[in-house]
Amino acid sequence: MTSPELLERLREVVGEEGLVTEPAQLDGYLSDWRGAYRGTAAAVVRPASTEEVAAVVRICSGDGVAVVPQGGNTGLCGGAVPDASGRQVVLSLERMRRVRAVDPVNQTITVEAGVVLQAVQEAAAAQGCLFPLSLGSEGSCTIGGNLSTNAGGTAVLRYGTMRDLALGLEVVLPDGRIWHGLRGLRKDNTGYDLKHLFIGAEGTLGVVTAAVLKLFPAVRSRATAWVALPSVRAAVELFGIVRALCGDRLTGFELMSRQSVEFVLRHGAGARDLFGAPHPWYVLVELGDTLPEAGLGGLLESALAEAFEREVAGDAVVASGSAQVDALWALREGISEAQNFEGPSLKHDVTVPVSSIADFVERTDRALREAVPGIRIVVYGHIGDGNLHYNLSKPEDGDDDAFRRRADELGRIVYDSTSSFDGSISAEHGLGQSKRELVADYKDALELDLMRGIKQLLDPRGLMNPGKVLPG
Amino acid sequence: MTSPELLERLREVVGEEGLVTEPAQLDGYLSDWRGAYRGTAAAVVRPASTEEVAAVVRICSGDGVAVVPQGGNTGLCGGAVPDASGRQVVLSLERMRRVRAVDPVNQTITVEAGVVLQAVQEAAAAQGCLFPLSLGSEGSCTIGGNLSTNAGGTAVLRYGTMRDLALGLEVVLPDGRIWHGLRGLRKDNTGYDLKHLFIGAEGTLGVVTAAVLKLFPAVRSRATAWVALPSVRAAVELFGIVRALCGDRLTGFELMSRQSVEFVLRHGAGARDLFGAPHPWYVLVELGDTLPEAGLGGLLESALAEAFEREVAGDAVVASGSAQVDALWALREGISEAQNFEGPSLKHDVTVPVSSIADFVERTDRALREAVPGIRIVVYGHIGDGNLHYNLSKPEDGDDDAFRRRADELGRIVYDSTSSFDGSISAEHGLGQSKRELVADYKDALELDLMRGIKQLLDPRGLMNPGKVLPG
Repeated sequence: MTSPELLERLREVVGEEGLVTEPAQLDGYLSDWRGAYRGTAAAVVRPASTEEVAAVVRICSGDGVAVVPQGGNTGLCGGAVPDASGRQVVLSLERMRRVRAVDPVNQTITVEAGVVLQAVQEAAAAQGCLFPLSLGSEGSCTIGGNLSTNAGGTAVLRYGTMRDLALGLEVVLPDGRIWHGLRGLRKDNTGYDLKHLFIGAEGTLGVVTAAVLKLFPAVRSRATAWVALPSVRAAVELFGIVRALCGDRLTGFELMSRQSVEFVLRHGAGARDLFGAPHPWYVLVELGDTLPEAGLGGLLESALAEAFEREVAGDAVVASGSAQVDALWALREGISEAQNFEGPSLKHDVTVPVSSIADFVERTDRALREAVPGIRIVVYGHIGDGNLHYNLSKPEDGDDDAFRRRADELGRIVYDSTSSFDGSISAEHGLGQSKRELVADYKDALELDLMRGIKQLLDPRGLMNPGKVLPG
Repeated sequence: MTSPELLERLREVVGEEGLVTEPAQLDGYLSDWRGAYRGTAAAVVRPASTEEVAAVVRICSGDGVAVVPQGGNTGLCGGAVPDASGRQVVLSLERMRRVRAVDPVNQTITVEAGVVLQAVQEAAAAQGCLFPLSLGSEGSCTIGGNLSTNAGGTAVLRYGTMRDLALGLEVVLPDGRIWHGLRGLRKDNTGYDLKHLFIGAEGTLGVVTAAVLKLFPAVRSRATAWVALPSVRAAVELFGIVRALCGDRLTGFELMSRQSVEFVLRHGAGARDLFGAPHPWYVLVELGDTLPEAGLGGLLESALAEAFEREVAGDAVVASGSAQVDALWALREGISEAQNFEGPSLKHDVTVPVSSIADFVERTDRALREAVPGIRIVVYGHIGDGNLHYNLSKPEDGDDDAFRRRADELGRIVYDSTSSFDGSISAEHGLGQSKRELVADYKDALELDLMRGIKQLLDPRGLMNPGKVLPG
């Protein structure tokens, strides 16, 4: 158990407001938002500055107490949830929510780890700039979590992942030292690039406390289309047509299986089918431009005309007006929630090369249907990134528990197939607790060896978010 | 001295063609292209495959012999030149020049380390794609060197540095193990991102043998302008105007001081001044688009009209026809060579935040002119990256040797000023031999400590390109 003396020393650093020990208040910090992972903790500390974070880490390190960094707690893999020992300290960054600087000339913003993603988007927009990272949880996820999981989302196609958007970091190392790496430089070749160690490390190598992020010119016009397609192969072909023609104007290209859309039509308020007949696949295409009058509608129509001519597209509609644009995005973004009405949903977040997507889906679907006749496959995702959310629902009249019991077996089918196409078993969700053992079966032993070496170098006592990322 | 037995074992691996020991043939591998650095070597080995590289590294490692990886040998900091001991082995990647795969659907190309940059550009173009990295030495520098130095160039503004263009790597580690990390995935969050350790490490952590690189849609139209400006501040303001209006169409924005252009006018064949009177500063602006008829000329003119209205630009010409475009780029690209006719040229490659460039140049120029009245300051570079080449020539009637003797002192003026603006003392040239000691004065001790830890982890015996990057 944790000594009362430890809590006293933590209280001295973070103050009364910064220390949570009451069971009722602790609760929200001990499980993830889905309730899929639950732990317990000696305390939750909520430091208000980088110096306080460093002091907390030093105190815990001195006592051999493990620290679990936590941002908005919106992750899907349990990476920010403490274990069941009750000896870990959760370090919440939620009080570090200062936008330290916006520099529109350098096109950078400097923010603390606890700033909510949407607040960064808004601070950028207030200066006529764009911060492009965009996810479903943007109203509650935080920059520290976005960095620690190398978050993706719907704009990666054009702007890259969080890793690509970070120029500099401030990090508290496992020994309590502060790395002041908040540089806003686009070129810096003075040795090893240390920031990439911490991005995507899910808090296992230190606590990210602040970052300098890239901004972009504001997008002033958009055009959005919904396209029905006969196959995934056709969707990939359409992607090639649009990308070659529109180049960087292409900001979104989201694929959905008919099954995905059907769930939204069934459960989503006000959702309606766009075409007379169902089609096997759909994509949502979005173009954007810095020019207010960029002729994007016409451009999108000429791309679609080429797609019809090559018999790639089955049907299409270009949205007119923002209400219709919103309705199209609602069809896409309603999938995850709609699927919850259909019983347990087994989620898999994978990437394969774009050129392999069609074969990958064909082979994986076949294997899944062989294993579970009638299984409902809710595939959707970001074609330009090769990233599919390969989610599964039980057969229409299947049993919830029977289906849940096959989770590992069905996961293996998806991951084995992913691996056979040189893909990744975690595209944008990270490893956290849920995939840390699994990864050992799919990752080169040499890579795991190097990862363990880096962990040992930075956190020799293993006190920084133990039980996450690295296989045991 | 190296044992004849070692050479024999190396010969067994790489064959007669792969081992160079004759002094006359060795010469080109022992100094850099400028002749600024010179060393000697026990042998040059030229393996033809990754397995051969691994075998060479294992043999050398077993005998405690240091290995110096070398690509096109076009670096400016001596990073690929062996030391004077005669005991090191130069490992040239020049026989590994296979384009292993081009995947236009995934928009990736897989190439070996010895492939010349221009050959990658050409292989991409043959498939209707663009590989955007572009440097002065593209006809002879190689992909392995580009990766190991995280090369930059004129297209970073739009497409990023080599680090941003790499998706996967194949690396021979200092112990001879091969890391097969040739993934062509745009999202992969399964642990620490190891490739970023090797990119920009200048061969001190292992030998990059191949890479998967990103491709982009081909650019089908361009517009280019030459703009005269009263100040650096005006140039930064023009950058803001063009970027906000044109967004991603902006692919080049190169700044030049009048002194830089004057040297080209004096020494460059056929170079001519574009305006009636000299102006203190010039920029070359280039727009590009995937659309063949994108109206870029009109767009550039409206950006310039806004610049004139805001009294930012002094004069401007939009190029008509490719001959004029070439002439403008020749003015920009002739600077480095032209400066050589004016005596010794002290080169500094620095970055500061874009928002600090104007103050940085003002303060640095003043300090330099105080130190050396009449000094000729040849400043030019990539405004969008905050990257300036701050090169110096002696006063018109100054003495070469006297000026050369002040190199360190003048370097300190530039670097101290860079550092006071939170800049980097090496933007795109790396550290190599030339800046490895210097960096210790400008880099956080904690960063140097982490760098040494990583070096120790991967190369505990210090046999991989010793004497480079890390301060002694």
